[in-house]
Amino acid sequence: MAIDPIQKMAQELSRLPGIGMKSAQRLAYHIASMPEEQVRSLAGALWNGRKAIHYCRECGNYAEGETCEICANQERHNGQICVVREPRDVAAIERMRDYKGLYHVLGGTLSPMNGIGPDDLRIRELLSRLSDQSVQEVILATNPDIEGEATASYIARLLKPMGVRVTRIAHGVPVGSDLEYADEVTLSKAMEGRRDM
Amino acid sequence: MAIDPIQKMAQELSRLPGIGMKSAQRLAYHIASMPEEQVRSLAGALWNGRKAIHYCRECGNYAEGETCEICANQERHNGQICVVREPRDVAAIERMRDYKGLYHVLGGTLSPMNGIGPDDLRIRELLSRLSDQSVQEVILATNPDIEGEATASYIARLLKPMGVRVTRIAHGVPVGSDLEYADEVTLSKAMEGRRDM
Repeated sequence: MAIDPIQKMAQELSRLPGIGMKSAQRLAYHIASMPEEQVRSLAGALWNGRKAIHYCRECGNYAEGETCEICANQERHNGQICVVREPRDVAAIERMRDYKGLYHVLGGTLSPMNGIGPDDLRIRELLSRLSDQSVQEVILATNPDIEGEATASYIARLLKPMGVRVTRIAHGVPVGSDLEYADEVTLSKAMEGRRDM
Repeated sequence: MAIDPIQKMAQELSRLPGIGMKSAQRLAYHIASMPEEQVRSLAGALWNGRKAIHYCRECGNYAEGETCEICANQERHNGQICVVREPRDVAAIERMRDYKGLYHVLGGTLSPMNGIGPDDLRIRELLSRLSDQSVQEVILATNPDIEGEATASYIARLLKPMGVRVTRIAHGVPVGSDLEYADEVTLSKAMEGRRDM
């Protein structure tokens, strides 16, 4: 239907998550109508941005240089390492402005169905970070879904013999939500994890 | 929160219609995790695509060369011109595979509130196309909203003295919809435009 350059734009855009063919086409038409200068700026931000992104050699988070800002920050406590699936999760935890330790980004979760085993994640790198005696606690903050739980248990089993404290983030009812809408598993985890007031 | 290249990506993406800051950030994180080759292809499609897009000198539709595929197609009837607001509307009408005439893209609708007057639209170009005697009918297919209606009436008034037939697309209840949910104005237009069966 549309001319070739617009079709090509729409095709590329529709590969992004959450953008179906219809929205991709709407976006492509919009981009076609944008001043060239703005499109150059958009395309430039994507391409130059991607080229500028590296992985922190310490924790595996996105970094502009060799190490990320968090690992490079002397004020972070190096006694705690919070293990997450993706750089996006680091950003989520950082938003709460509460955690002052370091991170370790696995780059995925165990998923035998998709052929992702321990060697595909940055687990070996985590173990080698623990050989430094300063680490006292590893907080497993993978997602509370099946793969996230399996990954957390796997890592917990590996780390226990090393004498480091291994914790898992709490499961329970989200703050501000309604008990009525909580699913049974969440509710049962919330009961299980109850604390004295 | 995020590192600078990701922030910049998110900022640029959030300028697109329908993409808020939260989705922009999600997209930026996704793009950061894409292979460089794919990002190059995405950014290239946007920038090269935009550069390849011109406006048809006949109808104002998007074109790769000087005239668009529709104007260049000898099989289209040059007796009908369908007037629309945007190239996107041409694509919508083409999708029905029913209309065989030509188009004229206004590039907007009259909107005194936003300072858009007749000189900002391609109305003069429409008049000059009519000086060619082959055009028998001008179909006004601007949107059925206030600005679209105002633009259609304005153009109709201009064209009437030129002896060309001027028509407006029908208003009524959309096919497949439910009468109960039709608003009163649409329903009254549907009654007004009723036809013998």
